[in-house]
Amino acid sequence: MAASRTETDSMGAIEVPADRYWGAQTQRSIQNFPIGVSRFQWQPSVISALGTLKKAAAQANAGLGELPKDIAALVVQAADEVIEGKLNDHFPLVVFQTGSGTQSNMNANEVISNRAIELAGGTMGSKAPVHPNDHVNRGQSSNDTFPTAMHIAVAQELHRQLFPAVEQLRNTLAAKAEQYADIVKTGRTHLQDATPITLGQEIGGWVAQIDFGLESVRNSLPAIYDLAIGGTAVGTGLNAHPKFGDTAAARISDITGLPFRSAANKFFALSAHDALVNTSAALRTLAGALFKMANDVRWLASGPRCGIGELIIPDNEPGSSIMPGKVNPTQCEAMTMVCAQVFGNDAAVAFSGTQGNFQLNVYKPVMVHNVLESIQLLADASRAFNDGCAVGIEPNEEKIASNLEKNLMLVTALNRHIGYDKAAAIAKKAQKEQTTLREAALALGHLTDEQYDQWIVPIDMTHN
Amino acid sequence: MAASRTETDSMGAIEVPADRYWGAQTQRSIQNFPIGVSRFQWQPSVISALGTLKKAAAQANAGLGELPKDIAALVVQAADEVIEGKLNDHFPLVVFQTGSGTQSNMNANEVISNRAIELAGGTMGSKAPVHPNDHVNRGQSSNDTFPTAMHIAVAQELHRQLFPAVEQLRNTLAAKAEQYADIVKTGRTHLQDATPITLGQEIGGWVAQIDFGLESVRNSLPAIYDLAIGGTAVGTGLNAHPKFGDTAAARISDITGLPFRSAANKFFALSAHDALVNTSAALRTLAGALFKMANDVRWLASGPRCGIGELIIPDNEPGSSIMPGKVNPTQCEAMTMVCAQVFGNDAAVAFSGTQGNFQLNVYKPVMVHNVLESIQLLADASRAFNDGCAVGIEPNEEKIASNLEKNLMLVTALNRHIGYDKAAAIAKKAQKEQTTLREAALALGHLTDEQYDQWIVPIDMTHN
Amino acid sequence: MAASRTETDSMGAIEVPADRYWGAQTQRSIQNFPIGVSRFQWQPSVISALGTLKKAAAQANAGLGELPKDIAALVVQAADEVIEGKLNDHFPLVVFQTGSGTQSNMNANEVISNRAIELAGGTMGSKAPVHPNDHVNRGQSSNDTFPTAMHIAVAQELHRQLFPAVEQLRNTLAAKAEQYADIVKTGRTHLQDATPITLGQEIGGWVAQIDFGLESVRNSLPAIYDLAIGGTAVGTGLNAHPKFGDTAAARISDITGLPFRSAANKFFALSAHDALVNTSAALRTLAGALFKMANDVRWLASGPRCGIGELIIPDNEPGSSIMPGKVNPTQCEAMTMVCAQVFGNDAAVAFSGTQGNFQLNVYKPVMVHNVLESIQLLADASRAFNDGCAVGIEPNEEKIASNLEKNLMLVTALNRHIGYDKAAAIAKKAQKEQTTLREAALALGHLTDEQYDQWIVPIDMTHN
Amino acid sequence: MAASRTETDSMGAIEVPADRYWGAQTQRSIQNFPIGVSRFQWQPSVISALGTLKKAAAQANAGLGELPKDIAALVVQAADEVIEGKLNDHFPLVVFQTGSGTQSNMNANEVISNRAIELAGGTMGSKAPVHPNDHVNRGQSSNDTFPTAMHIAVAQELHRQLFPAVEQLRNTLAAKAEQYADIVKTGRTHLQDATPITLGQEIGGWVAQIDFGLESVRNSLPAIYDLAIGGTAVGTGLNAHPKFGDTAAARISDITGLPFRSAANKFFALSAHDALVNTSAALRTLAGALFKMANDVRWLASGPRCGIGELIIPDNEPGSSIMPGKVNPTQCEAMTMVCAQVFGNDAAVAFSGTQGNFQLNVYKPVMVHNVLESIQLLADASRAFNDGCAVGIEPNEEKIASNLEKNLMLVTALNRHIGYDKAAAIAKKAQKEQTTLREAALALGHLTDEQYDQWIVPIDMTHN
Repeated sequence: MAASRTETDSMGAIEVPADRYWGAQTQRSIQNFPIGVSRFQWQPSVISALGTLKKAAAQANAGLGELPKDIAALVVQAADEVIEGKLNDHFPLVVFQTGSGTQSNMNANEVISNRAIELAGGTMGSKAPVHPNDHVNRGQSSNDTFPTAMHIAVAQELHRQLFPAVEQLRNTLAAKAEQYADIVKTGRTHLQDATPITLGQEIGGWVAQIDFGLESVRNSLPAIYDLAIGGTAVGTGLNAHPKFGDTAAARISDITGLPFRSAANKFFALSAHDALVNTSAALRTLAGALFKMANDVRWLASGPRCGIGELIIPDNEPGSSIMPGKVNPTQCEAMTMVCAQVFGNDAAVAFSGTQGNFQLNVYKPVMVHNVLESIQLLADASRAFNDGCAVGIEPNEEKIASNLEKNLMLVTALNRHIGYDKAAAIAKKAQKEQTTLREAALALGHLTDEQYDQWIVPIDMTHN
Repeated sequence: MAASRTETDSMGAIEVPADRYWGAQTQRSIQNFPIGVSRFQWQPSVISALGTLKKAAAQANAGLGELPKDIAALVVQAADEVIEGKLNDHFPLVVFQTGSGTQSNMNANEVISNRAIELAGGTMGSKAPVHPNDHVNRGQSSNDTFPTAMHIAVAQELHRQLFPAVEQLRNTLAAKAEQYADIVKTGRTHLQDATPITLGQEIGGWVAQIDFGLESVRNSLPAIYDLAIGGTAVGTGLNAHPKFGDTAAARISDITGLPFRSAANKFFALSAHDALVNTSAALRTLAGALFKMANDVRWLASGPRCGIGELIIPDNEPGSSIMPGKVNPTQCEAMTMVCAQVFGNDAAVAFSGTQGNFQLNVYKPVMVHNVLESIQLLADASRAFNDGCAVGIEPNEEKIASNLEKNLMLVTALNRHIGYDKAAAIAKKAQKEQTTLREAALALGHLTDEQYDQWIVPIDMTHN
Repeated sequence: MAASRTETDSMGAIEVPADRYWGAQTQRSIQNFPIGVSRFQWQPSVISALGTLKKAAAQANAGLGELPKDIAALVVQAADEVIEGKLNDHFPLVVFQTGSGTQSNMNANEVISNRAIELAGGTMGSKAPVHPNDHVNRGQSSNDTFPTAMHIAVAQELHRQLFPAVEQLRNTLAAKAEQYADIVKTGRTHLQDATPITLGQEIGGWVAQIDFGLESVRNSLPAIYDLAIGGTAVGTGLNAHPKFGDTAAARISDITGLPFRSAANKFFALSAHDALVNTSAALRTLAGALFKMANDVRWLASGPRCGIGELIIPDNEPGSSIMPGKVNPTQCEAMTMVCAQVFGNDAAVAFSGTQGNFQLNVYKPVMVHNVLESIQLLADASRAFNDGCAVGIEPNEEKIASNLEKNLMLVTALNRHIGYDKAAAIAKKAQKEQTTLREAALALGHLTDEQYDQWIVPIDMTHN
Repeated sequence: MAASRTETDSMGAIEVPADRYWGAQTQRSIQNFPIGVSRFQWQPSVISALGTLKKAAAQANAGLGELPKDIAALVVQAADEVIEGKLNDHFPLVVFQTGSGTQSNMNANEVISNRAIELAGGTMGSKAPVHPNDHVNRGQSSNDTFPTAMHIAVAQELHRQLFPAVEQLRNTLAAKAEQYADIVKTGRTHLQDATPITLGQEIGGWVAQIDFGLESVRNSLPAIYDLAIGGTAVGTGLNAHPKFGDTAAARISDITGLPFRSAANKFFALSAHDALVNTSAALRTLAGALFKMANDVRWLASGPRCGIGELIIPDNEPGSSIMPGKVNPTQCEAMTMVCAQVFGNDAAVAFSGTQGNFQLNVYKPVMVHNVLESIQLLADASRAFNDGCAVGIEPNEEKIASNLEKNLMLVTALNRHIGYDKAAAIAKKAQKEQTTLREAALALGHLTDEQYDQWIVPIDMTHN
């Protein structure tokens, strides 16, 4: 029983599992990099992106006369299986390998080559009729293919995962803002009671911040659409047809439906990944918005009796293993922990982004890994938060009303009528003597009962 | 001899130096926040921005009938002196104060009020005829004025300091790229010898990366042009004329010549400063570009005899207190240290940006401080690097040529002719036996002498 | 066919898979937190630590008369299976859940309860004779058990994974330092040629830095040995026997063989995890040491012909998909990428560590996750680097000798004889005229041929 | 009128201001590095540390026969003036210069040399009888002197600034903890009402965390006491007397009263500054403790009427420029902003710490700058917080009592008597029907009125 077959590369022969399409270089990487294997194997999005790239490259090369059409067709057929995720089990490599992603590029070359050979009825490992380097990697280098796959994966995951999930949450909150547009409540600055706002305004502030975060991520996309493909080893495009970069990018655009294009300066595209750094930074900004919102929600829901208590959030699970009946803002906590992870991931990306030398930055795998993880976590957490918290947020109108009624900062409405200094005296007197504002105002003689009613109208103060 | 005068605020009376325009609240802040005094007093750009804001507010209020024209005129006159920097000595406060910047807003109100009173022949501290709150701060709160001043200062410093300095450096490098467009040299990936590029291409990669960084910063500007003014205490605009925000923003735009406008959502504008977080992130990206460039320069200039030695950089000072005649890449070191500081500053900004609660983020001063410091440092370092290093960069053509000649990766040109595997065998043989590529190629019989000359042409490999 | 059974908690009934031991709260968490499921399920070390804790708690409660001995025996038996990893498939929860880890604590309570019930011949889900809260969680709260499990897992993984792996690498390098103690080579400061050192000294510097990093991690352990157990819900120890904390900690110490003890201040132990922040910081320092070493290795091995080229490192795989015969420092790249990840993880930990409120920090899961990931990655990468690079490092003695010979900084040995200024003149003249130092020295007449031989002796300059 | 004099170095002659002691290299640095001049000139602590080092070096060299005693005496006399701060105006250089601090080392050499020459009646700039390199820098290199000065400055500032200031704050809080040991209040976990604690326990938790932070900083000191001195240019000690390192360290210890010693491995001491990275990390941990405490204070003081309101903090200034009578937790805000800055500074230090190459890390100045800034800010903010907030913290006993009374989590005391599930039912019923716990308990029939009184005793629940 043959459990393995022999594959070769420029370093010689090596045994690989017979039921796997990968070849010698993949096998060497498995053996050389047993690092974080349980958690750091490449995600489907990266594998699929490599498939997309290889398909597009074969199409481009065929169109440019660089690859026989029959060979190209075989490559395309195998690559389609990679794109569809059918061959995910044949991509065993981890993030922490060569910093150019060479071994994952070769993993794709080898799997597609062997699968194409199989489709053609050839002998796996023979490199004929489809050679992993000369055909599948035609006109390419890891140095331009891997960053191209990075950009494809990131753009696709943003569109597939992040935008729908965050927008759903944003829309839920926007609907709540509209629903509660007329509930007047205490505003808070410095954690202290401030002039009134509506609950709609408060929630609307979260929506505006999330929108800004989403827009920041979207603004980072054009640079992600710029692809390194065509640069080959050092950016010069050596060994690639002069039109290969543009043509391959056009095919990638066709396959994905996204407006990818060949990057203007390939030397930059290989030696730095500042587009990814910017996307990571934008994800950080978005995470900051979700973090602030989740914090506000849990503070407003704090209590139920000894906190602010103005919001009621869903009880999804028992809150405590010791305190019976306790309900905790667990979706807020999951969300803020995700945001903390995104902040950390961004730090890893930004650090890595600074460490390029000469014609290559060799932190490619760790950069794309962290960006994709942040995308996935923010999307998942947004969905969970939406379903498990946001849709169920309700105002505690009784508490909101009682808080508003005793809020001393209603006095601010008097500035325009009696000036800041007299208004301040009223508020201080009321707080010192624990009276209402009205009592203090009348006692000081700065206005009449009628003026109080006329000038201090919380709903008017919100300029709703 | 009276060295002090009495000023009052809602907490009572306090003595202030007689020769200073500030009032009670500024004085309290001096006493309450003796934190980092020697290094963290506000920079002129912030003071000037506060002046700009107060002038614009007075003009807007006057135009809207909210302020008597004579009062407004006095405020404008005093504010002009603040803008021009004439009253900088009257702004003694530090970054680490109230997190809303309230005390610096009041510092501006007090100084302008007292200076206006003086101009009107009144008694300083009397708050008549110009009251710091009721007139200078008319229709405003620290919560909208301070973030407005933050945005004004950042936008102005980007235009005044950062863009000219970095563009000058970028242009110097771009000229070098053109000048050395025909020098063929060894490319390097993974720090290892790779296929050839031109020195122009290498430098051009730096230029493209710096351009991307600059563009990133520019892309962050539109959100900086959005001003909080008009939101007052919590975002509702309470106590401000409904048109005050738009009108004041228009006046600020007039004064500065920059396209400022009133922010669409004031609740967001007070409770988060994600526009600043984004600008900080963009400065981080730009710093990453300058960092990579400076690192490449020092590595390429390493040696002079035992390193790469392909570039010659200016000797500006003795390099060592113990090693005579040593020359060090000191401008590179100053630049990379500045970048490290910018990375740290960004971390402070991003952290602070996450910590808003409800209607206010109370990390305003520390956020704007770090963004402005990063701008200043990057601008200064770019100027110093330009003058002290970039303009003097020269190729060591002899070393470049000798390195290129022995570079085994010229073999890559053979891939298209004899295939990857045979080409690899040639390179390995040459390295193992320490021969030239040609010798190894001929010995293996994969090509003829004539083919070698025809196929391996370094300048052609650069696709220049 | 019954694929599920009904479990209940204080919120009611819920169906769980019939072949799983977990109960209602675990099931709710699965449904509520579908966040990063493929990568963020808890690792065996955390599950095992929860088993250790529950075993120790049962033993302690039994000894203190708080739990019937037969119940305790059942709990211990089930907990042993958890410790041994036999029930890992029954721990499906992810990092991003309740910030106190309540659901994972309940997961342990439920699994152990149901397994104990099964062992006792009872009905799973009946909570009899072993109740998840009243028995397995006896005298405990998630708020003290989860941080206790965090500390157990971290301490164990440091001892099991990190120390052996990094020490092995350190020892490999220390042996190299000894082996190459007599090879004199060019020192380098500012990347520029400097006075000579031995290769042993250079490698010894790496060893000393790694030792310092290891010592930093070890120094963080005593605080990790301090356990929260006994603090229950808020730190007061409510519902726990007064001796429970000390006794349980002693039992944990017995089980693990590590010197755990009950923390002196339980309020601190629940509301902050600064011990973990410190361990994370120490891992960051260690990562910095490995990062610097790996960078030095790749730079010293750069070339092979156009770089420094003083070290030869193993060829483990083809280096490039396009450049035949290229060998890259891939283990260095994997290591430095791991370090970048550790830096990012530390940022997530440190951020999370700041966000406690009142009696609880609710970032527990994300904190321990990142610390454990950093431990695993540093251990794995150290092993891979050791086997795939460090053991095979060899000097390129020819290149080392030729570099040393031409190094102008040998002139420094003359300072003591002719003074800094004259020595500087010699070095400058030699560099300018591209001569040897000796030629320049003699031409300037500052010393004789004999003095040159006597004063400039590279091996003596190393003070080896 | 002679406004300048001519100074020379190995690069030639240059004019310096006649009234300044510095020489040619300082002057070149002023001209070459106009970066952040207004904020980044070296602080007195660094200048003084350089003076200490130069004094100790002269004493050591004299004792070892390496320097004539009369020359040494002149150097010591001039260095004493540097230590005392008398010559601070002669140290104009900034942080962003050569990454080894060479120019600041030379600044010290030049100032001491010229001042010594002046004391000896010689001609400034003549380098006789005291030469800046051959005498003042005898047996030294910037590469060992500057890191030595870094360690001296950091250790001294920790002792002079940080420890006293933070300990004072810690002691104030500890006294408050004792003073309020008997005030029972609501505990809070997940921001939700939890079982009772005393105010003393709550404050005591802050004290324990601050103590841990202080201890972390103290634990970093032994490595700071290890000095690079004696390593000279690359760590070998070339040109220094074999006993110079030990002797100079002993003299530094005498001068400072701190247990400095010569580092065991000088190669490590020059090429990495992990001791500083660890100190920075410990300052980060301490900042985290102060941050959490300040946040708790402001949340507990939130309101005054619509928040938690359990603490009363001093009113130090008017809180708002628009809301009359508002009082804000400004000392908390200044403190938390300082902590944000410390987090950022630490990021800069940690990044810089990773970037060493071969025998030198050239981020020395930026590393020590950030550590010293963090020390200063934490010390200043601790003093301000102590004086302006901590000493005046008072409980709002009325609010504390009313909060406690309605806290449903008192139900937890029933777990031991009626089990978790029944206790949960009581709490849920009370919350749902907005009744008291007692009412719900009796209604459910789980216990009697007497049992309620007997089992639910808040003070007992605190285990005080």
